[in-house]
Amino acid sequence: MFLHRQALQYSASTEKPDAVYARKLQEVIGGQYGEITVAMQYSFQAWNAHIPGKYRDLLFSTAAEEFGHVEMLATMVAQLLEKAPHGITDDAVQDDPTVAAVVGGMDVQDAILAGAGARPVDSNGNPWNAGYVTASGNLLADFTSNINAEMQGRIAVARLYHQTDDPGVRDLLSFLLARDTHHQNQWLAAARELQESGVEQLPVPSNFPIKKEHREFSYQAINFSDGESMAEGPWASGPSPDGLGEFTYVDTPMEGVPMPPPTHPDSRFYGTTEAPNFVEKAAGAVQDALKRS
Amino acid sequence: MFLHRQALQYSASTEKPDAVYARKLQEVIGGQYGEITVAMQYSFQAWNAHIPGKYRDLLFSTAAEEFGHVEMLATMVAQLLEKAPHGITDDAVQDDPTVAAVVGGMDVQDAILAGAGARPVDSNGNPWNAGYVTASGNLLADFTSNINAEMQGRIAVARLYHQTDDPGVRDLLSFLLARDTHHQNQWLAAARELQESGVEQLPVPSNFPIKKEHREFSYQAINFSDGESMAEGPWASGPSPDGLGEFTYVDTPMEGVPMPPPTHPDSRFYGTTEAPNFVEKAAGAVQDALKRS
Amino acid sequence: MFLHRQALQYSASTEKPDAVYARKLQEVIGGQYGEITVAMQYSFQAWNAHIPGKYRDLLFSTAAEEFGHVEMLATMVAQLLEKAPHGITDDAVQDDPTVAAVVGGMDVQDAILAGAGARPVDSNGNPWNAGYVTASGNLLADFTSNINAEMQGRIAVARLYHQTDDPGVRDLLSFLLARDTHHQNQWLAAARELQESGVEQLPVPSNFPIKKEHREFSYQAINFSDGESMAEGPWASGPSPDGLGEFTYVDTPMEGVPMPPPTHPDSRFYGTTEAPNFVEKAAGAVQDALKRS
Amino acid sequence: MFLHRQALQYSASTEKPDAVYARKLQEVIGGQYGEITVAMQYSFQAWNAHIPGKYRDLLFSTAAEEFGHVEMLATMVAQLLEKAPHGITDDAVQDDPTVAAVVGGMDVQDAILAGAGARPVDSNGNPWNAGYVTASGNLLADFTSNINAEMQGRIAVARLYHQTDDPGVRDLLSFLLARDTHHQNQWLAAARELQESGVEQLPVPSNFPIKKEHREFSYQAINFSDGESMAEGPWASGPSPDGLGEFTYVDTPMEGVPMPPPTHPDSRFYGTTEAPNFVEKAAGAVQDALKRS
Amino acid sequence: MFLHRQALQYSASTEKPDAVYARKLQEVIGGQYGEITVAMQYSFQAWNAHIPGKYRDLLFSTAAEEFGHVEMLATMVAQLLEKAPHGITDDAVQDDPTVAAVVGGMDVQDAILAGAGARPVDSNGNPWNAGYVTASGNLLADFTSNINAEMQGRIAVARLYHQTDDPGVRDLLSFLLARDTHHQNQWLAAARELQESGVEQLPVPSNFPIKKEHREFSYQAINFSDGESMAEGPWASGPSPDGLGEFTYVDTPMEGVPMPPPTHPDSRFYGTTEAPNFVEKAAGAVQDALKRS
Amino acid sequence: MFLHRQALQYSASTEKPDAVYARKLQEVIGGQYGEITVAMQYSFQAWNAHIPGKYRDLLFSTAAEEFGHVEMLATMVAQLLEKAPHGITDDAVQDDPTVAAVVGGMDVQDAILAGAGARPVDSNGNPWNAGYVTASGNLLADFTSNINAEMQGRIAVARLYHQTDDPGVRDLLSFLLARDTHHQNQWLAAARELQESGVEQLPVPSNFPIKKEHREFSYQAINFSDGESMAEGPWASGPSPDGLGEFTYVDTPMEGVPMPPPTHPDSRFYGTTEAPNFVEKAAGAVQDALKRS
Repeated sequence: MFLHRQALQYSASTEKPDAVYARKLQEVIGGQYGEITVAMQYSFQAWNAHIPGKYRDLLFSTAAEEFGHVEMLATMVAQLLEKAPHGITDDAVQDDPTVAAVVGGMDVQDAILAGAGARPVDSNGNPWNAGYVTASGNLLADFTSNINAEMQGRIAVARLYHQTDDPGVRDLLSFLLARDTHHQNQWLAAARELQESGVEQLPVPSNFPIKKEHREFSYQAINFSDGESMAEGPWASGPSPDGLGEFTYVDTPMEGVPMPPPTHPDSRFYGTTEAPNFVEKAAGAVQDALKRS
Repeated sequence: MFLHRQALQYSASTEKPDAVYARKLQEVIGGQYGEITVAMQYSFQAWNAHIPGKYRDLLFSTAAEEFGHVEMLATMVAQLLEKAPHGITDDAVQDDPTVAAVVGGMDVQDAILAGAGARPVDSNGNPWNAGYVTASGNLLADFTSNINAEMQGRIAVARLYHQTDDPGVRDLLSFLLARDTHHQNQWLAAARELQESGVEQLPVPSNFPIKKEHREFSYQAINFSDGESMAEGPWASGPSPDGLGEFTYVDTPMEGVPMPPPTHPDSRFYGTTEAPNFVEKAAGAVQDALKRS
Repeated sequence: MFLHRQALQYSASTEKPDAVYARKLQEVIGGQYGEITVAMQYSFQAWNAHIPGKYRDLLFSTAAEEFGHVEMLATMVAQLLEKAPHGITDDAVQDDPTVAAVVGGMDVQDAILAGAGARPVDSNGNPWNAGYVTASGNLLADFTSNINAEMQGRIAVARLYHQTDDPGVRDLLSFLLARDTHHQNQWLAAARELQESGVEQLPVPSNFPIKKEHREFSYQAINFSDGESMAEGPWASGPSPDGLGEFTYVDTPMEGVPMPPPTHPDSRFYGTTEAPNFVEKAAGAVQDALKRS
Repeated sequence: MFLHRQALQYSASTEKPDAVYARKLQEVIGGQYGEITVAMQYSFQAWNAHIPGKYRDLLFSTAAEEFGHVEMLATMVAQLLEKAPHGITDDAVQDDPTVAAVVGGMDVQDAILAGAGARPVDSNGNPWNAGYVTASGNLLADFTSNINAEMQGRIAVARLYHQTDDPGVRDLLSFLLARDTHHQNQWLAAARELQESGVEQLPVPSNFPIKKEHREFSYQAINFSDGESMAEGPWASGPSPDGLGEFTYVDTPMEGVPMPPPTHPDSRFYGTTEAPNFVEKAAGAVQDALKRS
Repeated sequence: MFLHRQALQYSASTEKPDAVYARKLQEVIGGQYGEITVAMQYSFQAWNAHIPGKYRDLLFSTAAEEFGHVEMLATMVAQLLEKAPHGITDDAVQDDPTVAAVVGGMDVQDAILAGAGARPVDSNGNPWNAGYVTASGNLLADFTSNINAEMQGRIAVARLYHQTDDPGVRDLLSFLLARDTHHQNQWLAAARELQESGVEQLPVPSNFPIKKEHREFSYQAINFSDGESMAEGPWASGPSPDGLGEFTYVDTPMEGVPMPPPTHPDSRFYGTTEAPNFVEKAAGAVQDALKRS
Repeated sequence: MFLHRQALQYSASTEKPDAVYARKLQEVIGGQYGEITVAMQYSFQAWNAHIPGKYRDLLFSTAAEEFGHVEMLATMVAQLLEKAPHGITDDAVQDDPTVAAVVGGMDVQDAILAGAGARPVDSNGNPWNAGYVTASGNLLADFTSNINAEMQGRIAVARLYHQTDDPGVRDLLSFLLARDTHHQNQWLAAARELQESGVEQLPVPSNFPIKKEHREFSYQAINFSDGESMAEGPWASGPSPDGLGEFTYVDTPMEGVPMPPPTHPDSRFYGTTEAPNFVEKAAGAVQDALKRS
C-alpha cells in the first residue's frame, strides 16, 4: 500500500517563470532515466523479489521516495510555467528576443494539454513508457541496473544544473544530486554485499551451470575493428573480474563458419525462391503471363 | 565503416522446426536487452566518445561483434520457421496438440509479414526502439550500463536454454552465453580501470563540484516503507563506496516542507480555479448561464 | 511524498498456477485503463490542480490507493506464475492439451524477462505509456475522464471475472469491482458538484466566452451517414444538456465551401507542382535530362 | 463505405504564414484528443456496436464528420506553412527575432518530411497511435469516453484560440468550438437517454451481477492521503449517484492484510532466492567458485 | 468532407467463429501495411498535394475506398469473434485441443477491451501508429511508396488466404486481393505517367540541381560485403535507370578518410575526456577525492 | 559477421557549430527513412532471403554501407554540437537572437542525455523504431520498398541541403545525395531484372494463383470522391501495367451490400445489446435497481 502525505521532501520553488527550463526538467520526470522510471523499476523489482528482508525493504523504500521526487519536480514545473507568457503574438516576439526563445523552446503540450502544468513525458515530449523498466528477479543484475540508472540520472541533473541561474531551481537540484549520490552508493553497497556473501556472483546469473557455456570463448577479447589500442586494456590480459578465467587477446576475428543455405519455407509464403534455371524461367515468363490472364 | 563477411561467428543450425521457440528467440534479437540494443548502444557510445584509444577501440569492436550476433540469431529463427506448419486448419489442430500449441505460441507476424523469417522485434512482437539505448558520453556511467545489459542479456539466454531440447539451438546459446560472460567481465574490467586511474570516479559524474550538492543528504538511508530490515544492510551504516562519506540510517522520512500553493496561470488556460466565494459563485451560476446564452 | 506500507489493501492469493490468466491480468496492471494509468492520471491531476482543498485531496488519496492496486495485482501475477511450467518440451505438449494452451497463451516475457514475475505491460505485452494519461487542469473535463477510466476499468475486470474459476483470484476481482464502483460514483458526485456549484459548467471549458464560437453550429445534429434513425435521439431535438440551446436536425451535410487551391511552398521543398503546360514540359524533359548530366 | 466530397465543411484559410502555429495545430490533428482520435474512436464504436438504429447511426455520422475535420485542419496547416521561411541562415536570424522564434518553434518534420505539409502527429511530433482509441462495446462507457474526448478537445482549441491573431485561423477555430459544443451535448444526451431508458445503468457495466462484488467496499471514501478536506465532498456522505448505496468516509486506510510470502519459481529462472543460511553460503562461496572453474 | 453509407463494398460474412483467425486479420486492419495505413497515407498525400486535378482526385478517391476496407475487415473480425468461447476453463481445454489453440492464439484484448470486437491494432496487438505514413509532397516518391504498400499488403492477404478454410472469409479476401491488384497497377500507371510527361523524373527529387551532388559516386556499385556475385547484376555495369549515368563496379570499399578527432564539448557536460597524462591523473586522484570531501 | 574499420567513407567535418542543424540531421540518422532504417531493412531482407547469389550479396553490401552512413552522420552531429552554447541564460538570449533561436531549435536531449552527441532518434526526438522496417521475403516487393526508401531519403537530404551554408556539411550531403542516386538506380535495376527474368512479376506476389481473386474488380478505377479528373489518368483506361488486364472507369461506387446485422457475443462481455422492447425495459429499470441493491 502507498500512503500520501501533502508535503514535499524538499523545497521546490522558483524565483521567476522559465517555460524553456520547465521543458528541460521534464527529462527528469518522464525520461528514460527520470524519476518515474526509477520509481516504477524499484517497485517492480520489489514485487518480483523472492527474498523477504533487507533487499526488498530497500527496494520498497527507495521506490516510495522516488514517487515523491516525481511530485517535487511536477510541482516545480507548474511553478516555472505559472507566469510564462501565454498568448504569443508577432509583436511580442519582435520586441523581445527572450520571448522568441520561449516560443520555440517550451513544451507546447505543457500549455495546450496540461494548461501550464507538468506531464509524464521527457524533454522532447515523448510519453514515458515501461520499456525503460528492468526487473528480472535476479538481484545482482537488477542492482547493477539501478546503479546505472542513478548514474545516468545524476549526469542529467548535473548538466541541467548549469542551464539555469534560478536559485530555487538550483536548490532543488542540489538536493536531487545528493540523493542520487546516496542511491548510487546504496546500490553499489548492496551489489557488493550480494557478491561477498556469495548469494549472487559473477558472471550473472551465477547459478547457471557454467560448464554448459563454451568456455573457450568466455575470456577472449576478439577485435572486430581495427583499433590498435584494444589490446592495451585490462580486458585483454590478466585475470577476469569473475575470478574464473584469464583474458586473452585475439587480434582478428575467427574466420567463422559458412552461413547455412537460405531457407525454403512453404511456397504459400510467396517468398522469392531460386529458379532451377534463370534463363529458362525468363523464357517461360511470357507463357506464364498468358496462362494467368 | 562497416564491412560484412558472409560467414557466421559460430554455427547456427537446428535439428527440427520450432515456431514457438523462434518467437522466444526474437527476445534476444529485438528485445530491451537483445543484440540490436547492445550493437546500437556500443556504436553510439563510440561515436560520442571524447577519447581516442583503447576505450573507443573496445566499443567499436564489441559493437561490430554484436551486429554479427543479430545475424546469427536471425539466421537461426529463419531455420526454426523453415518447416513450420503454414496453413493450419481445425482438423490439424484436432489431431495434434503440438499444432495447437504452435497456433497460439508462434509470432504470427513472422509468418504474415516476414514469410517465415526473423524480424527486429521482441518476443511479444514489440518493434525494437531506440529508447533502449544509453550513450551519455560519460564512460563510467556507460560501461555500467553495459555491464547491466550483458547481465540482463545473459539471464534471458540462460532462461531460454532450458526451454528447448534442440542440440543445435543449445549449441548456439552456449556460445552466446560464453560471449556474454566475456562481455560482462570486459566492461567490469574497463569500469574498474577508469576508477583506479582516476579518470572517472564515484559518484558519477565525478567532476561535478560535489560541494554544490546538499551533502547532508548524500549518505542518508531514509526509510519510506515500514520494512524493519532496511537498517541491516551495508547502505545504512559504515563507509560509502565512493569513499567520501559515512552512511547513516533514518527510520522515518523527514516531515517535509509544505507544498507551495497551487499555481494560477493565465486564465485563458481555462483551468479550474478557486472562486473567492464558492457559495456566491453558485448563486451567480444561473445568471452566468443567461449571460452566456 | 509517498510512504509505503508492507501490506496489501486486500488479500491476493491464488489456489493454483495459471500462466495464461497471469497474462490477462497484465491488462489491469499496465493496459490503457489499468491501475498504472489511473494512479498516474490522478497524481498528475493533483499536481496540476489550481485549487487546494477537497478536490485535490480526493485526487491525492485516490492516486495513492491505485498505486496500491498495482501492487496487489503484481503480487497476484507472481503467484499465478510461481508454479507454472518452465521448460516446455514437445513431449509435455503431446501429453497434455493444457500445456499446449499455456505455451501459446502466456506472456513469454513474464518468463524470459521477469523470471516469473509481473511487468508494467498490458495483456498483449505493450509497455504502459504515458499517452494514456489525461490531466488538463480543468476539473470537470478531468473528472469526466476519470469516470470514463473507472467505467472502462470495471468492464475489463468484469470480463476477466468469468475467465477464471480460481476462488482467490475471483475474491480479489470482487474487491476491485467494488472499488471501481466506488470510484465511478465518486467522480460522478464530484463532477456533479462542480456543475451545481457553478465552478465549472457545460460546455467545457465554460469560461471560454461562448459568443466567440459560431453559435449557429452549436446545436446542429448533422447527419454525415445515411442512417435513418439518427433523428430519433434526444440529440436531434429538444433542449441541449448545457441548458443553452435547442437541438435541430440536419439530414444532409452542408454543401461546404470549396477547398482552397493547393499550396505552392518554396521550390526547394521539391514537391511536385503543376507545370504551366504539361505537354510543353514533357517536350522539355529530354533537354532537362541532358542539362542535368 | 466512405465517400469523399472535394469541399470543406467550413472555410480554412489564413492571412499570413505562421509555421510555429502550424505546429500547434498539429495537436488538434494528431494528438491524444485530436480529430484523428475521435474519427477512429467513433468508427470502431460503430463497428463494435451490437444494436442497429439511432446510436449506431449517430456514431457513423459523427465519425464521418470528424474525418472531415482532420481534412480542414490539414488544409489549414499547409497554408500556414506555404510561405514560411525555408532556408534559414544565421544572417536571417540576426536580422529578425521572429525568424529566430520560427527556427525553434516550428515542427521541423513538417518541413523535412512533408515538404511544408501536415502530418498525422501531435504538436510535439509524436505520431498518432491507436492506444488513444476506446471502443468497448458498452455504449454508456463509450459515450462517457466520448464526452471526455470532446471536453478535452474543446479545451485544447480554446487555448489555441488565444495564441493567434490571424482572423482566418480564429474563424475556423470558432467553428470547431461550436461543433465541440454540439458533440459534448450530443454524447451527454445520448448517455442520459441510455440510463433513463434502463438500457445501461450505473455502475457500468450494469449487467454484471452486483452481488458478486464485495459490496462493503463499494461506497467507502477511504483517505490514503492526509488532506483534511476530503470528507467535505458529496463522495463522502449521502446517496451515491448510482442510487444503490450510501457513501461513508473512512479517514485512514485499513491496516490491510500481510503480503503473501515471496514466490519461489523454478530455479531455472535464476532469480535471487533466500539461502537457508546466509553466513554459511558466504563461507561456501569460494569453494563454489573453484567448482565452477 | 467524408460521407458515410451504411453498406459494405463487398460481402463480409463468415460461416463459423474463429478467434485465432480474427487476430490474424487484425494485421490487415492495423498493421504496418494494413488498410488504416493506406487510408491515412493517401489522405495526407492528397492534402499535401500541390496540383489540383487527376492525381489528387485519384488520391482522394482511393483514400475513401480504403477507409471502407477497414470497415469491411472490422465487421468480419466482429463476426469471427461473435460465437467464440468466452469463459475458458481447464476442463474445456482438456476436452478439446482446438480450445487450447484458441486460448493462446486469439488476441486477448479483442475480448477484454473490445468485448469481442475489432481494434485498430496489428496481429501482435501493437496499436497502429502514424510512423507508418508517408506523404512527402513529391508525387513520384509517394506513388512509389504506394506501390510498395499495395505489394506488401497483397502479400499479407495472399498468405492469410491459405490459413483459413472458411468460404466467407476467403470470398472477402478474394475481393481484397483484386483491389490490391488494381491499386498496384494504378500507382504504377500513375508513376509511369509522371516520368513520361517529365513532371517528375529519376533520381527523385529530379529538380534538385544534380551537379551539386558528387557525381563520381552516383553510379558506383561498391561491395561492402564479400559476396562474389554482386558484380553480376545490372546495377554493376551498363546504363543506369535514370538515363544519366553508367554503372561501374568497385569490388572493395574505398580506404576512407580518417575519422576526425573526438569532440571536446563544454566540460559541464561531464563527458569522459582524455587526461594530459593518465598516470599523473591517477596520482592526483587521491587528492581530488580529499578536495571533493 | 560485421567488421569495423576506423575510417569514414567520406569526410564529415564542419566549419562552425550549429546545434539547430544538428537536430535536423538527426532525421537522416534515426528518422522513418534515415540511415538506421535502410541499414536494418537491407540486413533483414538479406537474412530472410531464399536465394543465395547476387541479390543477397547486394543486400548485404548495401546494408553494411548504410551502417557506415549512420557513423558519418553521428560524427557530424557531434561536431556540430561540439562548440555549441551550453549554459544559456537570459542575458545571453537578450544579447543575441541567434542564441534565442538555438534555445528553442536544438534537440535538448542531445545535450541532456548524450552530452553533445548524436542519438538514434529523428529530428523531433522520436526514438527510431523497427516498425519502419520491411522485409517480406519477396524480393520484388522489398526492392520496391527500397526504391521508395531511397527516394524519400534523398528528398529529405535535398531539403536539408538548403538549410545550411556550412561547406563541410554541404560536402557530406553532396556525397550522400550521390549515394542515394546510386541506390535508387540500383534497386530499380534489380527490380526490373526480377521482372524481365520472370522470377517475380506483377501483381506481387505473382505466384499467388490469380484466378482465386475476383478478377472482375482487378482493373476497375472506381471513384469514391467527386473529382472529375480521375477518369483522365492512364489508370482509368488502357492496358494495365501488369499486362494482364484493361482498365475501366466506374464513376460512382457500387451500391454495396447491406451490412450484416450487429453481432451478439456472449452476454458476459457486457456489451450494450438491443432490448426486445425499449419502453418495457425502461419501465423495468426501477425494479432492476431494487433487485440489484
